[in-house]
Amino acid sequence: MKSVGIIVEYNPFHNGHKYHIQKAKETCNPDCIIAVMSGNFLQRGEPALLSKWSRAQMALLNGVDLLIELPYYYATQSANNFAYGSVTLLEKLGVEHLVFGSEDGNIESFLNSAKELDSIVFKNKDYSKSFPRSFLENTDPVEIDIGLPNNILGVQYVSNILKNNYNIKPLTIKREKANYHDQTFNDERIASATSIRNKILNSKGQSFERIFNYVPLNIKDLIINEKNNFKSWEDYFNLLKYRLVSSDINELSSIFLVEEGIEHRILKYISNSSSFSELITALKTKRYTWTRIQRTLLNILVNHKKHEIEDKSLSYARVLGFNNIGREYLNKNKKNIDIQVVTSPKNIQNRMLDLDLRASRVYCLGLNNPSGQELFEREFLPPIIIK
Amino acid sequence: MKSVGIIVEYNPFHNGHKYHIQKAKETCNPDCIIAVMSGNFLQRGEPALLSKWSRAQMALLNGVDLLIELPYYYATQSANNFAYGSVTLLEKLGVEHLVFGSEDGNIESFLNSAKELDSIVFKNKDYSKSFPRSFLENTDPVEIDIGLPNNILGVQYVSNILKNNYNIKPLTIKREKANYHDQTFNDERIASATSIRNKILNSKGQSFERIFNYVPLNIKDLIINEKNNFKSWEDYFNLLKYRLVSSDINELSSIFLVEEGIEHRILKYISNSSSFSELITALKTKRYTWTRIQRTLLNILVNHKKHEIEDKSLSYARVLGFNNIGREYLNKNKKNIDIQVVTSPKNIQNRMLDLDLRASRVYCLGLNNPSGQELFEREFLPPIIIK
Repeated sequence: MKSVGIIVEYNPFHNGHKYHIQKAKETCNPDCIIAVMSGNFLQRGEPALLSKWSRAQMALLNGVDLLIELPYYYATQSANNFAYGSVTLLEKLGVEHLVFGSEDGNIESFLNSAKELDSIVFKNKDYSKSFPRSFLENTDPVEIDIGLPNNILGVQYVSNILKNNYNIKPLTIKREKANYHDQTFNDERIASATSIRNKILNSKGQSFERIFNYVPLNIKDLIINEKNNFKSWEDYFNLLKYRLVSSDINELSSIFLVEEGIEHRILKYISNSSSFSELITALKTKRYTWTRIQRTLLNILVNHKKHEIEDKSLSYARVLGFNNIGREYLNKNKKNIDIQVVTSPKNIQNRMLDLDLRASRVYCLGLNNPSGQELFEREFLPPIIIK
Repeated sequence: MKSVGIIVEYNPFHNGHKYHIQKAKETCNPDCIIAVMSGNFLQRGEPALLSKWSRAQMALLNGVDLLIELPYYYATQSANNFAYGSVTLLEKLGVEHLVFGSEDGNIESFLNSAKELDSIVFKNKDYSKSFPRSFLENTDPVEIDIGLPNNILGVQYVSNILKNNYNIKPLTIKREKANYHDQTFNDERIASATSIRNKILNSKGQSFERIFNYVPLNIKDLIINEKNNFKSWEDYFNLLKYRLVSSDINELSSIFLVEEGIEHRILKYISNSSSFSELITALKTKRYTWTRIQRTLLNILVNHKKHEIEDKSLSYARVLGFNNIGREYLNKNKKNIDIQVVTSPKNIQNRMLDLDLRASRVYCLGLNNPSGQELFEREFLPPIIIK
């Protein structure tokens, strides 16, 4: 079976995502669409608006055939590591094409930029270092504008495919009508996930009817049913503060991404911060970007320690859901699938998977009970199955 | 100046406590009443219904002249360690008498029982071990009924005075009309703190007018003003659960009082517990008493590690409040006071005091803001001063 891979967050799913899937189908005419999706925490170092189960459901209702969770370890890192984890999972799942959205829209630009970067930056193959943005900005000639978030990710996808000699063929689709960072609605049917999220989070339980112009009709009820479970960093601020005020400096220093003494700055500002936005505003400097700080705080929240994941190889593909096509793909392509397919995390000994589960447990604590407890128990049930 | 020491929790202050203070004054005719009081967490391993500041205020309004905080390290341990910490503080503050309430009411019984126990149990002077209750119950002859909680504490106060050769003379007052464990009101003016607490916590924001029969009139407004800040373990359950689900087994094993593999039992039951009472009910066995489990969970909540307090000596007396008599005592008795008197914890390097502050910060997170933030900032303001 021919398959196309896509790499997604769906925070939340919207018409632009549907367009992406349709275009991928039109372009490659695959038998199966496989999505690798972040779990409950996202690449920018923040909790997903809705749990991975809700987002998987939305995806499966709108054209995705098989939904795989990108492990927390890769899902919450900077672009190059996020990309490495995502394309590696797709490669091991035997995917032929990767189709990604970008501001640029021309795959040649990405191939050129990636080769350029690859030859210089990736010689040392050290995936644990953050992508040096200042370097990127000064590289000449760079074919595409890597100041745009989807372009950055695109270059990293392509670069990781090239340097690892993966068999995946990358393709890109130009994002239409909405920019990643758009805060407001500029079009009738397409809006950025950021603007939809803002509308939902700012509604404070009031109507957010307007967002339904921008999402497929078939997920409207799902969003409405989850209206008490929309999550943002503020829902985790008390837990984060508790972690910080009850930790000593050595415990903080042992956390992944806590480097260059930022733990001292964090402890300095936490006492007088009464919200997440207050804390991060106080912490932000030229040296530390918002996203970098968010990722650092997220690892503190999840208690992800520096030396916890010694084996960084991707050895499992956690299935969150599938339809009949996805199931058939898993059954028929066994010889092309070079990874353990996990449909339940029970009884599996794997530290990277343990970290996924821990992150999920923490995410669940941000929901009120019984929703939080139910969501936690959901973790050990079979994947979502759509007819 | 002659002083009498009392050892209290005031959770909350009630008429029986007032009677205790009056009797201490009648019996010893002191110039000054010094109370050593637990901070925000109590001997049974639970958060105080009201913060130490509120409870200090209640005490100062009702006859206490100088209020000293018993460090968390001693305040939240079993009877012998609690007693050691308390009487040692009083000794270092130059107190002449200790007056404690008891079910028995006869100091000779306590002296005999304490000598008996002292000669057998305390030979090894290992204060870190819990008092062996099974041993107590089988000791013959024991003069008093040590199944009663105030008798247990009384024996330990006396025992610690004797074996450390302190200069304090112990006296006891028979507790009238209410037993420690009484769940309901049996008298018109005297009720146990337990029954008053239950009434308040079970009122769920509704009227708890009936408790005002049992507390001095001058603290009624204070209690009413604090009605949104009553705390119980349930208010800390989410933080505790977060700590547990985000810790690995080694981190849990390193916590003070986590012994004999109880960490495995706790991790087994936490996932499916949706309240503190559910968790502790699941954990309770013949081997682990309710109180012992509460203390263990409290140390997990506060992240108090086994080897954190290496120097167990009492080297500071944290003043929570005083009136003119208390102030005079501190000024005039300097030569009798064998301990650093601390009126603000700022800029003091002491690990036991750091632990007090950490416990207070955690306690504050159980309150909604702005109360929680204000309470946290209160920690660094001067003591309460009553004219």
